[in-house]
Amino acid sequence: MNFASDNVASVPQEILEAIAVANQSSAMPYGADDMTALALRRFRELFECELAMFAVATGTAANALALSCICPPWGEIYCHEGAHIIESECGAPEFFTNGAKLVPIPGENGKITPEGLTQVLATTAPGNPQKTQPAALSLSQATECGTLYQPDEIHTLAEIAHAHGLKVHMDGARFANAVATLATAPSEITWEAGVDVLSFGATKNGALAAEAVLFFDPALADEAAFRRKRGGHVFSKMRFLSAQLAASLADGRWLSWATQANAMAERLTQGLARLPGTRLLYPVEANEVFAALPDGVADGLEADGIGFYRWGGPGSSEVRFVTNWQTLPQDIDYLIDRALMHAARGGRG
Amino acid sequence: MNFASDNVASVPQEILEAIAVANQSSAMPYGADDMTALALRRFRELFECELAMFAVATGTAANALALSCICPPWGEIYCHEGAHIIESECGAPEFFTNGAKLVPIPGENGKITPEGLTQVLATTAPGNPQKTQPAALSLSQATECGTLYQPDEIHTLAEIAHAHGLKVHMDGARFANAVATLATAPSEITWEAGVDVLSFGATKNGALAAEAVLFFDPALADEAAFRRKRGGHVFSKMRFLSAQLAASLADGRWLSWATQANAMAERLTQGLARLPGTRLLYPVEANEVFAALPDGVADGLEADGIGFYRWGGPGSSEVRFVTNWQTLPQDIDYLIDRALMHAARGGRG
Amino acid sequence: MNFASDNVASVPQEILEAIAVANQSSAMPYGADDMTALALRRFRELFECELAMFAVATGTAANALALSCICPPWGEIYCHEGAHIIESECGAPEFFTNGAKLVPIPGENGKITPEGLTQVLATTAPGNPQKTQPAALSLSQATECGTLYQPDEIHTLAEIAHAHGLKVHMDGARFANAVATLATAPSEITWEAGVDVLSFGATKNGALAAEAVLFFDPALADEAAFRRKRGGHVFSKMRFLSAQLAASLADGRWLSWATQANAMAERLTQGLARLPGTRLLYPVEANEVFAALPDGVADGLEADGIGFYRWGGPGSSEVRFVTNWQTLPQDIDYLIDRALMHAARGGRG
Amino acid sequence: MNFASDNVASVPQEILEAIAVANQSSAMPYGADDMTALALRRFRELFECELAMFAVATGTAANALALSCICPPWGEIYCHEGAHIIESECGAPEFFTNGAKLVPIPGENGKITPEGLTQVLATTAPGNPQKTQPAALSLSQATECGTLYQPDEIHTLAEIAHAHGLKVHMDGARFANAVATLATAPSEITWEAGVDVLSFGATKNGALAAEAVLFFDPALADEAAFRRKRGGHVFSKMRFLSAQLAASLADGRWLSWATQANAMAERLTQGLARLPGTRLLYPVEANEVFAALPDGVADGLEADGIGFYRWGGPGSSEVRFVTNWQTLPQDIDYLIDRALMHAARGGRG
Repeated sequence: MNFASDNVASVPQEILEAIAVANQSSAMPYGADDMTALALRRFRELFECELAMFAVATGTAANALALSCICPPWGEIYCHEGAHIIESECGAPEFFTNGAKLVPIPGENGKITPEGLTQVLATTAPGNPQKTQPAALSLSQATECGTLYQPDEIHTLAEIAHAHGLKVHMDGARFANAVATLATAPSEITWEAGVDVLSFGATKNGALAAEAVLFFDPALADEAAFRRKRGGHVFSKMRFLSAQLAASLADGRWLSWATQANAMAERLTQGLARLPGTRLLYPVEANEVFAALPDGVADGLEADGIGFYRWGGPGSSEVRFVTNWQTLPQDIDYLIDRALMHAARGGRG
Repeated sequence: MNFASDNVASVPQEILEAIAVANQSSAMPYGADDMTALALRRFRELFECELAMFAVATGTAANALALSCICPPWGEIYCHEGAHIIESECGAPEFFTNGAKLVPIPGENGKITPEGLTQVLATTAPGNPQKTQPAALSLSQATECGTLYQPDEIHTLAEIAHAHGLKVHMDGARFANAVATLATAPSEITWEAGVDVLSFGATKNGALAAEAVLFFDPALADEAAFRRKRGGHVFSKMRFLSAQLAASLADGRWLSWATQANAMAERLTQGLARLPGTRLLYPVEANEVFAALPDGVADGLEADGIGFYRWGGPGSSEVRFVTNWQTLPQDIDYLIDRALMHAARGGRG
Repeated sequence: MNFASDNVASVPQEILEAIAVANQSSAMPYGADDMTALALRRFRELFECELAMFAVATGTAANALALSCICPPWGEIYCHEGAHIIESECGAPEFFTNGAKLVPIPGENGKITPEGLTQVLATTAPGNPQKTQPAALSLSQATECGTLYQPDEIHTLAEIAHAHGLKVHMDGARFANAVATLATAPSEITWEAGVDVLSFGATKNGALAAEAVLFFDPALADEAAFRRKRGGHVFSKMRFLSAQLAASLADGRWLSWATQANAMAERLTQGLARLPGTRLLYPVEANEVFAALPDGVADGLEADGIGFYRWGGPGSSEVRFVTNWQTLPQDIDYLIDRALMHAARGGRG
Repeated sequence: MNFASDNVASVPQEILEAIAVANQSSAMPYGADDMTALALRRFRELFECELAMFAVATGTAANALALSCICPPWGEIYCHEGAHIIESECGAPEFFTNGAKLVPIPGENGKITPEGLTQVLATTAPGNPQKTQPAALSLSQATECGTLYQPDEIHTLAEIAHAHGLKVHMDGARFANAVATLATAPSEITWEAGVDVLSFGATKNGALAAEAVLFFDPALADEAAFRRKRGGHVFSKMRFLSAQLAASLADGRWLSWATQANAMAERLTQGLARLPGTRLLYPVEANEVFAALPDGVADGLEADGIGFYRWGGPGSSEVRFVTNWQTLPQDIDYLIDRALMHAARGGRG
């Protein structure tokens, strides 16, 4: 039982089958295949617009590629101080942009506020060649804290960004989980709210390895083909990448999988409410639960062989549980049972 | 029927099965999984040495990553003027090395000669800061012309390179085809002959998308983990990448697949010998056949719906046929039959 | 009368004469000249060690070149949040390092504290390829707030840095002003205290355009010659750059000039003490005075045609005055007289 | 007596005086000064158009900055195989462009021909993301062989370039020498002939260290201010850089100096004609004379302490003599006298 990351999950049978289907015949390489055309069509239907799609295999590649298309080497990219792009990509955005500066913005629950964004923008000096230049805002949806931006929050932030000449990127590694909770049309929290380019994540939501960079303004994608190739991210057998995306989008599967993951996070949250002394670190709005556990519980769960992440560092009782499409109610119930037991023992200890 | 590229082929069942097996249980992300350990073990057995392995998904990524570990931004990389790294990667090596210079060396049949290498090295000025500095030699095995370096040829070139302080890279996108023909131990044409780092290709030889950068001197790999991550090439579900590699190496499959491809190229070569007026452009030593076809034959085959590549440019009668693990004798025979028919008709025309 | 920056000053006659002397005969280009040898010799005498010297023409070039030699593309460079390298160089360090991350550390009076450094280092993850890696500490001496690190403060910070595997850079654009105040040997606040590479500034202290990157461990300079040339900073008529450095160092001139500038800042500080309602923003320890002026004074001085910088932004009463080698007591006295008058009038207004 | 390079010459008194004049008063930094405005005005007068000017201190910086504004990281820059940008700048263009590819074109006498350019363009694949993309043509005027492009030759090459979507750069390190010989208006061999951006050299023609990047289409300069700053090439005391340029352009000095240098090269050529067995390697059209000298002459001149460059490598009798604004008829006559003497002795030896 492993709540360490979405990435520990297996791949749904539907995706493996799609790969097998793509494998039944020969196809032209580098994306000139039917499966890639199908994935593009499904994305356009889903987002109800004429977007441009660039498939890659990792979220880091998606983010770095997207940002490099909207930020010059002397640009500043504003992101939450805990964002994946600044914390967990070893400088991939700096590499792909040839040296842009990621500017961290603090904010509660992993979210940038209009005030936070306005404040950092107030210190910039557009046009002054001594200074790196405002270029892009990057929002994570869901955030690294498992929280969500509401449609109007995105709208407000994007409006501020656009008023300052920025482009808006959304890191949607867990975009599906956001849509599942918000119950909005995907367009409503992306291009309709002012997002210019989206890293649409499939890997954390079932795929083997597949992400799509979606440019809602195809003009922004002019350089993307060259940048993707230079990054080594053009798959010769692109059909297998595209098959994963197409299969995820078929019949609303991507949303079902995310809905299941979110429901399990909700069940886990409710379970933890029965564990005295437990404190949630952030509101639970997607498929991640961050909690400060009572003494001894984290160690006990670890001894049980249950996987999770010590959010507060090695040995910390502040932990992160991530649920996924495959998580079952009995997994959650078992986890809670064990936690209750360890807490009871901890109380006695 | 498609001889356009190795990449048009399907994936062998054994590889899909390995993915399915890897999918049966949860695994830790980013390479901390059993499948990755297995792939590494098999590579070490195959090459009979303590190599370091970095899996990526594309040949371009493998080459660019490998080169970036052995060449500084001001370095020169010597390669054949038709090499994939200089001709077909949109500057990925320049991107990953932060601006190194690829220096093309001419040579018959896609091969660098000792004289060619010596000549270009004679114009360098080691230590002179006005000049980009000699850094690396990159050999393609098999070459872009479907030809091979003999073990002693590699040895001689590597010796010259090392004597000038260069590191030696081998682009082995079709390494399996080379080993199949040469019937040598893999070590004999790599580290024993002086190769420092190898891009081991699996994608052109059956895999969905899997390559391995193999450092025979693990000290050269010190930066590779960071460079790979910055390039966006660390798969969170690494097990699915590693499964492809491990499955390819199991039971000598990689060699069987390449042997089949090579045999079909040989059969095709023999067939073309029966086609009057046909001229081979290069010796056929692996799984590629380059030929100048008699008038009308290329157009005829194209009209038949048979896929191949116009090597001499659009409309040219100089063509490339690539065979793969899946090519069958009857495919070749059909191709030859049609070619004979078109030639006969062309003669009449 | 201009207190806007050190850069508004004229060049001392001694420097123009040194250029004229260098001009009297022909010399070999690119640094193979006597004047460059002389500058190197004088730096070695001054710092009492076998340093390596690389002359460039701007402080930004010096900092970026120095940092690129001690920080990989995936490295983190720790600096004060107000440092010139993060605030005023348009990303030159990111450019020269090919994408390193500058991590701002807050701290009073423009200074990094051991606690601040320790705290940021505690969040790093050496060896973890998801994370940019700790690489360098950059200290500004004097700081952007006109304050100084004491020798033992540098020692303590460098010790922490080295214990974490960092190299230590010092941005010494105003190094002379620091030495003038501290009355130490230059070695005492550089290599003896743990500084590995120094950007020694001459431009703010009289030169037309001349800075020197000094590597106290010459092994760190292995790449500097290539990086400097690639940056376009190798002067063909290097003798004119070196002449400025050599002339500055002769007869302790560099220190005399800085001493004069510092004395004038001190005189200004004493003068401001007579201006009721004036508040110093930072301790005055070098040649910069930051002050919050009483109402109307800044506007009045501006109307008088006296140059200075509105530190708090356009229209702010928080200002910066910079003195230089050329500033005279009567300049300061005039400034204070005018300020007193404007303050008196402001009181009446 | 030193014919090794233009860079060995002294600086004309007029330039030192201009620096002294610029030094008489305080001035705002970073180019917001009168001298910079004056230099710009004089360039606009000279070229009779509304150009944008960016002063830097080295030719390498000028070329790299100019190219980075007209070529993306995945672009190809076509230049003569002996061009300074590909041979003598340690990859500065690759650094500033973030990895562009310099494609060498062979051609007699250091010049690209329309056929040579057409031939290399024929192998490109615009829009194909596998391939680096045609971006820029760089012409050297005068060339590295001391030869010149005639106005119509530039026009023809630029027309081909523009027809393929390229921008045209001119490396004018010795632009003055070209204008002096061709006796054309500067506009005629630059923007009127299709040149988009010029590296205007002053350093080889008298200045201490000053070059100007001139954008004839100011729209191309949008990024130049940021790129120059990132490169560390914005001088705080910009007035001293601009003073050199302004002084060079005043009263046609730049042309007089170049005319003198060219005349001396012509005198040298005529002198060599009296030296039996001497062969010119290239036509002499500017201020450089390349010659294969009779046996013993080069060694004899070297023993005389006369400086020159062994073009064919150490010990070669193929040599380069460069004249400059300061070269006098008696210098040439002495050189020829000595050469005749060594030749006579060599004949006897």
